[in-house]
Amino acid sequence: MLKFMLYNFFYPKSIAIIGATANPKKFGNAVTTNILKNKDIKSEVFLISHGSKEIQGIKTYDSLLDVQDEVEIAIILVPANFVESVVDQCIEKQVKGIIIVTSGFGEVDEAGKIKEKQIVGKCKKAGIRVIGPNCVGIQNADIGLNASFIQTPPQGEVSMISQSGSFGCAVFYEMERDVVGCSKFANIGNAVDVSFDEFLSFFTQDENTKTICIYIETLTHGRKFYDTLKEITRIKPVIVLKGGKTITGMLAAQSHTGSIASNYEILKTAVKQAGAIMCEDVSDFITAIKTLSFLVPPEGENVGILTNSGGNAVFFSDNVDKFNLKLAEFSDTLKEKISPHLISLVQKINPLDMIGVAEEEQYYYVAKEMFEDKGIDIVVGSAVIPPFLGMKSDEHFRGLIRAWNETGRKKPLIPLFLFSEGFDELKEIARKEKIPIFYTPHEAAYAIKLLILRKKFLNHKSNS
Amino acid sequence: MLKFMLYNFFYPKSIAIIGATANPKKFGNAVTTNILKNKDIKSEVFLISHGSKEIQGIKTYDSLLDVQDEVEIAIILVPANFVESVVDQCIEKQVKGIIIVTSGFGEVDEAGKIKEKQIVGKCKKAGIRVIGPNCVGIQNADIGLNASFIQTPPQGEVSMISQSGSFGCAVFYEMERDVVGCSKFANIGNAVDVSFDEFLSFFTQDENTKTICIYIETLTHGRKFYDTLKEITRIKPVIVLKGGKTITGMLAAQSHTGSIASNYEILKTAVKQAGAIMCEDVSDFITAIKTLSFLVPPEGENVGILTNSGGNAVFFSDNVDKFNLKLAEFSDTLKEKISPHLISLVQKINPLDMIGVAEEEQYYYVAKEMFEDKGIDIVVGSAVIPPFLGMKSDEHFRGLIRAWNETGRKKPLIPLFLFSEGFDELKEIARKEKIPIFYTPHEAAYAIKLLILRKKFLNHKSNS
Repeated sequence: MLKFMLYNFFYPKSIAIIGATANPKKFGNAVTTNILKNKDIKSEVFLISHGSKEIQGIKTYDSLLDVQDEVEIAIILVPANFVESVVDQCIEKQVKGIIIVTSGFGEVDEAGKIKEKQIVGKCKKAGIRVIGPNCVGIQNADIGLNASFIQTPPQGEVSMISQSGSFGCAVFYEMERDVVGCSKFANIGNAVDVSFDEFLSFFTQDENTKTICIYIETLTHGRKFYDTLKEITRIKPVIVLKGGKTITGMLAAQSHTGSIASNYEILKTAVKQAGAIMCEDVSDFITAIKTLSFLVPPEGENVGILTNSGGNAVFFSDNVDKFNLKLAEFSDTLKEKISPHLISLVQKINPLDMIGVAEEEQYYYVAKEMFEDKGIDIVVGSAVIPPFLGMKSDEHFRGLIRAWNETGRKKPLIPLFLFSEGFDELKEIARKEKIPIFYTPHEAAYAIKLLILRKKFLNHKSNS
Repeated sequence: MLKFMLYNFFYPKSIAIIGATANPKKFGNAVTTNILKNKDIKSEVFLISHGSKEIQGIKTYDSLLDVQDEVEIAIILVPANFVESVVDQCIEKQVKGIIIVTSGFGEVDEAGKIKEKQIVGKCKKAGIRVIGPNCVGIQNADIGLNASFIQTPPQGEVSMISQSGSFGCAVFYEMERDVVGCSKFANIGNAVDVSFDEFLSFFTQDENTKTICIYIETLTHGRKFYDTLKEITRIKPVIVLKGGKTITGMLAAQSHTGSIASNYEILKTAVKQAGAIMCEDVSDFITAIKTLSFLVPPEGENVGILTNSGGNAVFFSDNVDKFNLKLAEFSDTLKEKISPHLISLVQKINPLDMIGVAEEEQYYYVAKEMFEDKGIDIVVGSAVIPPFLGMKSDEHFRGLIRAWNETGRKKPLIPLFLFSEGFDELKEIARKEKIPIFYTPHEAAYAIKLLILRKKFLNHKSNS
């Protein structure tokens, strides 16, 4: 028999939902609905229900033991005090993996901690792997498997391991708005058995996963996590966010997932040493995800910026120093080349403020010259969307994209549209062209910093 | 004759647009269109045009001197080299105030600096006040006057002085999204005559202005600004953002508005001492605007938080320490009162994680108890919008608002809906109830910090 691996959780041959129900006010219904929503699902699905004889036209079983076929994965949603007996049935039925969604264990009290350990102990003996308890479930957007009670994210290439289910849910909302897509998602909850490092290893081997992001409150198997991380970062960028960094935050984490949060400074040092990105807050986490899933690192560090807004040039420049970036000095050749595309008022210095009259054509020609210039490695295409002169709100972005595409996308384009989240037409372009949009100078500058860090790390690795 | 004051710029009896044109590709057209869009405008409008005989059905004049009636305000949009001769006509015509939109002066070179000083010198002798040059214009949303070439913001109670026109434009986009409204707006550009302190004084007297926000790159008349600011902050909250904080930022500011940016640390200290808020970046600036325009300061500092997301509780708690806030300790009485509304799993500690099942009714009852509790001064109503159990995306917010309204809005409610900007129904409630929404724990915690600072400042003032 082949060894059961995390792969099987994400590509299960058969799933039993234990605690399925027709009652829309129960999580057992939400998981059932999410799984059955996919009409093309390859996995066989068995519904085990106490109260509902039939759910969405599918007959249910009273007990897992009534199922004749083999069951690979069991998702458990029964109340906490019934979990152990259901797990006993799983052992008897020889399922290979269990996802315990039910909460009320280690996150509540000591008794809960003992209980979850007992359950996992039994499973371990039987060779069964356990995700959870106290989790929302897992997802594999590549095959349309939503084995969780939260929404299905847009499909893409980011895989996420989260210790908080609701944070996963919130990140999906943000992914939707930032046109980033998800490949695999796992909420590990109290993480009594399957731990961060195992998911990490699996995501590394997973072809569809190009970028990995992790939300951690508590880390067990720290050493193993570090070693695994170190291996992975050579291959795929990994973005980490830690909750429970301060005393008050650690106490809150304790009542959330039932364990003392790990020391932040130690974790941070380890994560950085392993070549992953440690984000300071939820906003940076999102910025890092959209940056590293779409953009490739630059060859050098020289930043060129074009804009139609002096204010935006000033804000970005403040962030240049904050993030220790390098503004390119425009060469005489470049100045000469961009000159015909600029009105006489414009000073040919970096940041290049083409002022409010600059239209698509100026953006296109000037950006193209910057992309082709040897002294510039990263181009920040920045604008405040002009509500005047009959300009189209997406014309500046279109000009930038045209220049980027025509020069073979050899250097990163950082689109910075200050406070322009309300413009859906920008997002349409972002979606089509697979490029992020940054809405504040902080985001744009942070994105550049991350790309440069990534480049340096990869250079260092290939030299060592 | 009554003295001409800034009031007249914002409530002008008559306006001449010098450089009006029917060509939609010119700023002279944008300003004309913006002014004429308001069919109920009380000011008489005269269009002075070189090329267009008629604009939008209104006959134009060749020269300002052809206008028979009195002209109070002139908006100048002719090319830079024609500005001085047009100003001479304004002097001859005895206009009272001039807004020079045209750029190409002190922000470009030394010659431009000399030129703008000459122009202002002439005007000063003639008793004419000048806004600009190099600005987008001014607005008074209360009477529908948009004497600028940027968009009209939603009407409201925030007045803004900005040294960058495009930043004003960007802030309006953000105001739209954050359902904040604007009363008066002035872009002071190179600020050769009318300066920050004068706008500040006017906004203080202006009844419709409840909150003032300022974007500064360079400050002239620093002492006067400080003294004015100190007077105003007793009456209205003032929010300041500085561009050009770092060396690179200062250089960028220099080419933007033509002057050496002020030293950030000195300005920061002065602004704080004067009782105003100094924001560290554009995002905090927006958060401060929405906080201080809608919420009133709390009596004390004890924060109570209810949530449906453990992750969000952890993030907020990290920010409690970051901003040095105080989490209330729940009294036994409070625990007893909220107990019937919570499922047994819920631990009655602060932050109160009611987990994902919590619906409108739990939010309502628990928030109400918190609002009525003596040990709590500020209530953070937090949620990750649950995509399950048939919940409505706005029900948590509705529950919170109901509790807030029924308890007389005596304590600030801080709605924290993590990454939920995509939910328009939340914004509808925010608009109707005049309350901000915060989308990250940082925003929510920063908002609380600002409210507490404001309270302390007002207490201190009334005691001294």
